[in-house]
Amino acid sequence: MRHAWLGLTFAASLPALAAEPRGRDLGIPFDFGRPGRWNAITDVAGVEVGHVTLIEGDSVRTGVTAVLPRGKSDEARQRCFAGFFALNGNGDMTGTHWIEEIGLLDGPVLITNTNAVGVVRDAVIGYAARRWGRDELWSLPVVAETWDGDLSDIYGGHVKAEHAHRAIETASAGPVAEGSVGGGTGMRSFGYKSGIGTSSRVLAPADGGFTVGVLVQSNLGGGNRRLLRIAGVPVGEELPERAPESARNGSIIIVVATDAPLLPHQLKRLARRAALGQARTGAIGADSSGDIYLAFSTANPRAGESSGTVPLTMLPSERMDPLSEAVIGATEEAIVNSLVAGRTMTGFKGRRVEGLPLERIREILGRHGRLAGD
Amino acid sequence: MRHAWLGLTFAASLPALAAEPRGRDLGIPFDFGRPGRWNAITDVAGVEVGHVTLIEGDSVRTGVTAVLPRGKSDEARQRCFAGFFALNGNGDMTGTHWIEEIGLLDGPVLITNTNAVGVVRDAVIGYAARRWGRDELWSLPVVAETWDGDLSDIYGGHVKAEHAHRAIETASAGPVAEGSVGGGTGMRSFGYKSGIGTSSRVLAPADGGFTVGVLVQSNLGGGNRRLLRIAGVPVGEELPERAPESARNGSIIIVVATDAPLLPHQLKRLARRAALGQARTGAIGADSSGDIYLAFSTANPRAGESSGTVPLTMLPSERMDPLSEAVIGATEEAIVNSLVAGRTMTGFKGRRVEGLPLERIREILGRHGRLAGD
Amino acid sequence: MRHAWLGLTFAASLPALAAEPRGRDLGIPFDFGRPGRWNAITDVAGVEVGHVTLIEGDSVRTGVTAVLPRGKSDEARQRCFAGFFALNGNGDMTGTHWIEEIGLLDGPVLITNTNAVGVVRDAVIGYAARRWGRDELWSLPVVAETWDGDLSDIYGGHVKAEHAHRAIETASAGPVAEGSVGGGTGMRSFGYKSGIGTSSRVLAPADGGFTVGVLVQSNLGGGNRRLLRIAGVPVGEELPERAPESARNGSIIIVVATDAPLLPHQLKRLARRAALGQARTGAIGADSSGDIYLAFSTANPRAGESSGTVPLTMLPSERMDPLSEAVIGATEEAIVNSLVAGRTMTGFKGRRVEGLPLERIREILGRHGRLAGD
Amino acid sequence: MRHAWLGLTFAASLPALAAEPRGRDLGIPFDFGRPGRWNAITDVAGVEVGHVTLIEGDSVRTGVTAVLPRGKSDEARQRCFAGFFALNGNGDMTGTHWIEEIGLLDGPVLITNTNAVGVVRDAVIGYAARRWGRDELWSLPVVAETWDGDLSDIYGGHVKAEHAHRAIETASAGPVAEGSVGGGTGMRSFGYKSGIGTSSRVLAPADGGFTVGVLVQSNLGGGNRRLLRIAGVPVGEELPERAPESARNGSIIIVVATDAPLLPHQLKRLARRAALGQARTGAIGADSSGDIYLAFSTANPRAGESSGTVPLTMLPSERMDPLSEAVIGATEEAIVNSLVAGRTMTGFKGRRVEGLPLERIREILGRHGRLAGD
Repeated sequence: MRHAWLGLTFAASLPALAAEPRGRDLGIPFDFGRPGRWNAITDVAGVEVGHVTLIEGDSVRTGVTAVLPRGKSDEARQRCFAGFFALNGNGDMTGTHWIEEIGLLDGPVLITNTNAVGVVRDAVIGYAARRWGRDELWSLPVVAETWDGDLSDIYGGHVKAEHAHRAIETASAGPVAEGSVGGGTGMRSFGYKSGIGTSSRVLAPADGGFTVGVLVQSNLGGGNRRLLRIAGVPVGEELPERAPESARNGSIIIVVATDAPLLPHQLKRLARRAALGQARTGAIGADSSGDIYLAFSTANPRAGESSGTVPLTMLPSERMDPLSEAVIGATEEAIVNSLVAGRTMTGFKGRRVEGLPLERIREILGRHGRLAGD
Repeated sequence: MRHAWLGLTFAASLPALAAEPRGRDLGIPFDFGRPGRWNAITDVAGVEVGHVTLIEGDSVRTGVTAVLPRGKSDEARQRCFAGFFALNGNGDMTGTHWIEEIGLLDGPVLITNTNAVGVVRDAVIGYAARRWGRDELWSLPVVAETWDGDLSDIYGGHVKAEHAHRAIETASAGPVAEGSVGGGTGMRSFGYKSGIGTSSRVLAPADGGFTVGVLVQSNLGGGNRRLLRIAGVPVGEELPERAPESARNGSIIIVVATDAPLLPHQLKRLARRAALGQARTGAIGADSSGDIYLAFSTANPRAGESSGTVPLTMLPSERMDPLSEAVIGATEEAIVNSLVAGRTMTGFKGRRVEGLPLERIREILGRHGRLAGD
Repeated sequence: MRHAWLGLTFAASLPALAAEPRGRDLGIPFDFGRPGRWNAITDVAGVEVGHVTLIEGDSVRTGVTAVLPRGKSDEARQRCFAGFFALNGNGDMTGTHWIEEIGLLDGPVLITNTNAVGVVRDAVIGYAARRWGRDELWSLPVVAETWDGDLSDIYGGHVKAEHAHRAIETASAGPVAEGSVGGGTGMRSFGYKSGIGTSSRVLAPADGGFTVGVLVQSNLGGGNRRLLRIAGVPVGEELPERAPESARNGSIIIVVATDAPLLPHQLKRLARRAALGQARTGAIGADSSGDIYLAFSTANPRAGESSGTVPLTMLPSERMDPLSEAVIGATEEAIVNSLVAGRTMTGFKGRRVEGLPLERIREILGRHGRLAGD
Repeated sequence: MRHAWLGLTFAASLPALAAEPRGRDLGIPFDFGRPGRWNAITDVAGVEVGHVTLIEGDSVRTGVTAVLPRGKSDEARQRCFAGFFALNGNGDMTGTHWIEEIGLLDGPVLITNTNAVGVVRDAVIGYAARRWGRDELWSLPVVAETWDGDLSDIYGGHVKAEHAHRAIETASAGPVAEGSVGGGTGMRSFGYKSGIGTSSRVLAPADGGFTVGVLVQSNLGGGNRRLLRIAGVPVGEELPERAPESARNGSIIIVVATDAPLLPHQLKRLARRAALGQARTGAIGADSSGDIYLAFSTANPRAGESSGTVPLTMLPSERMDPLSEAVIGATEEAIVNSLVAGRTMTGFKGRRVEGLPLERIREILGRHGRLAGD
């Protein structure tokens, strides 16, 4: 949504323009295999993403992002096996007590700003009731957040139920807009503008050929440019430090999707691996950072059935290493993508967050022999 | 709030009338020491409770209950050490990732119906901002729920932000109304009307003289009368089974307060002990039951300071057994109190839930030699 | 092993003699359905139990109990789904990090005294290597403990590797000896002699017809007779209090077996339910008590395969309530059985622990209208 | 212990020879501040480390390492606040149920090979009983392991109780030997010889001036050279891949010590941060890797008292970021140090593991502009 600051609101997900480079386009090398078609969480079949971006006047820079594990059709009523991990719990993700208990994700995952978690949560219940009746579908919604109070009037109540509904309804497969869109609209990471980022990996046939997709809403690293690492190079040490607008450090929500047939306890393992991908960007799991990760599997469509006995398929734990690598690689890349797609933004109280200086990054990586194709 | 069904709304906490018997008044024996003055969570100095009860027309039977660890004055800005435990996570309690991470409860605990968690959550943030400015106080609110969809139009959106604010503002020390009040208005347990219940224990001086208070919003045991045990007697086996209005089993939120100087990991231990008190009522931790417990300590007023180093006092773990006993005893008693205070209620779609037949219970206990004073 | 104190050592598991009453034989009522043929963990097909009882001279009162999920044949190489829960972790159970991680139990569960955990642990590795070669089977053994230092010379190193081997080799299906046998030889609960106890439940066909078996090594409640409850009756209040031999309270290891096809996260749920059964005996989860529970499922024989993808069957979580009830009922009964089978024992330093006064218990229950058949 | 393979056994901790370079000596840059005097876990006052190295004949390459939080004097009876985290639980660390429960570490931490955990565990109990009498000190010992079965006859039972005693008795402050010593004797990481490594950081006065020390027994990354990253440079991609001797991947035990006054839940946070340091070396938390971390604080000497109420000091969580950075930096450095100190070793069945090619590493880092002083 690069044109979002022209004043458009409700801008739904658009294809990433070829003109908008992503991390790989800049020559940044990433590890652990090759991405899927869109290099996005939507490479996992069935997963859809919707963004509602709210950019209004001087002080509204926020929104809602929805990740639908099984799309918007009636298949969305089928629960998915899921597991979560909090590297540092300074944030909220509702609905996780039930995921921890029965290992099932019932409905979409929504991500917004910290102060809008409640309205978005209740809106998910309302959406399901309106659509499928009051049968208690989606009744413990999963809604997560990061803080956009630097760039946006976070206490203003600008996110409404209809925005959550719209994010669900406009979700789509295919390319996923990154940067200052949806829930990521007002976010910054390591002192630069960031927001939503995504990436994927497709495993080799010998490893099962499974797909892993990652979507992040990154508000990571607060104002601390110094910490930033890209492709292992401590680029932050060479970038000009600036006084951050706020002392508050940032957070990150990471959603991991896969079509590999993993059980809930195995998905917790995958969620935990996201920390290793995050670590490669230099983030330290700061005290003020809500680093909360959720992983789900679209395999086993019958996982959520409630009668009889249910036939399942499981990938043995011994075969999970390629999936772990995929999560680590795609998480690192999604965070970098969220920065690459960021563009300088001015918002609440005239605060301004710069976009990552892409040419400067290329120059630093090149000097360290870390540009692909060098 | 026995007169609540006369049509009053916004009824704030009133003293329990002498005419309204509680469990002990019926001669039910409870274990593990003696209660405090009010036999309520408010026996822990500083703790205040507020109820907003919404009973309107044929289909609104709901509300909000607020537990304020340090009352409503500016001391409410001081965080408390806290810990939680989910015996069965089929429910939600927001804000627990942060409690798990830093062991601090920042603000009040609110309890309402399942579909109102969001509006109440955001309302807490709004309350704090209005009162103390936008300084991120109470920014990850703790809001929990049980399901009142049998007796109340739970999808109707009847709980509003103002109700949450009112529950906080009208909170008070002293006696705590029980039964169909506040968040407990539309709840039932073991097929009988229940709701809010509370109890307390004061430790012997040799054990430190600490106070433990428990407040429950009990929707426990669903329609299954057969499971109910009072004072160890399986009274449910002698009560007439009735088809429950709903197949959905119930849940319970248990809040444990103490003035004993416990650290976060010790408060998790206390929270876990609530399961042992609950077990004495016959509840099995049913699949559909969200049994989530939170414990906090009002000691160590400086626990939440964020600069320098903080002097604390700790009760050694070796001295916790009397506190464990107190939690078990007060939890069992609070659940029974929630039933004793329940009265037959008719609500949504004409559904009717009977009050516990108090004389019949006395008769059964008497026959088993389990009435105090016999 | 009632004759064990005649000086026999290495006494392997013998059928429970008809002359040795168990809880039910005394007319004690237990809840939640009917037991299997042996009213023992061995009612779960494939499960075998072996005891090695060490009673020598004045000061050796200890032993080893082995629970083999899939017996002693080569099927014992097949891992089982498993989950654990520590109500109070003042004890050890080795090998649980790996169970938590991959949800599989690899090998038998052994229970012994606190100071013999190490020798027994290494002995399990040695046993597997000798039998199947050095292929890393059973390489993170699960060994748990309770403290028998009152009645036995626990620092004397009397348990040897050969005892662990013998417990495995002599394990058998069928009836399970209770009381002062195996790892339970020197244990006491609530101030009375106890040790090993077991019980089972068979679900109704409509609930799947599954079997749940429980085995406990109970050292619960330390010297505190006052806490003891049987069939809901606080019998401890009517029994003569005696100064316990030691200030140290006791612990309990609970092993839950089932043939229901549960996944690891569901087995954690079952393990947690054991706390509710324990609570019915009056135990408070004392600070000094290591209350650690393990649950495994013998279903899904291919659960532990490490290549390809594995077909599984799962019982939906919504169908677990009858299993939860079975665990609660069988746990309570197994603890009572461990006490009923206890007999007065004199041991280390002349310390003496009395057996539960069975006639007195019957008299108290009868007076409270709680004897079956009354 | 570079001369250990000359045949010496029982070689106790010796000062690191100046002739033996460590990571920094090679010009490898490490982040997050400056090390303490010894750049070792022993920079935390009171902490002592002892190694017993067993190198005998062709097939014994193993040992025991002891970390004593409060040294060997009677202060060693004072328990320390502690917390742990398992990134991947394919390994064992005994005694953690109790640490999780009361947040206290009672006694030393010992690290050995997988099959010797039991003998070492019981030996710690025996040591305490012999020294202080049978007063239940150190009765739930903390013993961890990694697998040295490639280079050593791990099923041969070569580690004895006396070796554990010796590791405790010979522990000392000051420099800590690295590489093929103690429990690390037979370990390899990323296909190269490794073992014990250590590092430390001293915080700036403004951050409290606290010290953080890390000791690892690294068997990380198995035979996968390709994963290895040093100073952010993927050196493994440029090193010759070799078929690993064994398909089994490796594990790592990380012990974090600090004198900062942290509570148990805060120490769990620190332990979790070790994962971020490990991630920087390229390790993925492989399925077969037991990545288990323990953190303890030597502050609050009265933390383990069991009577009265205990005065404590706490560093606010908001001040933990410099400690998190220190853990991340010292963990990465300790792992690299374990590799730098490794030397080519031949062992069991003639298997040979090469030492890290130090000049080649320098050359690669230099080419990437990542050598300090360049």
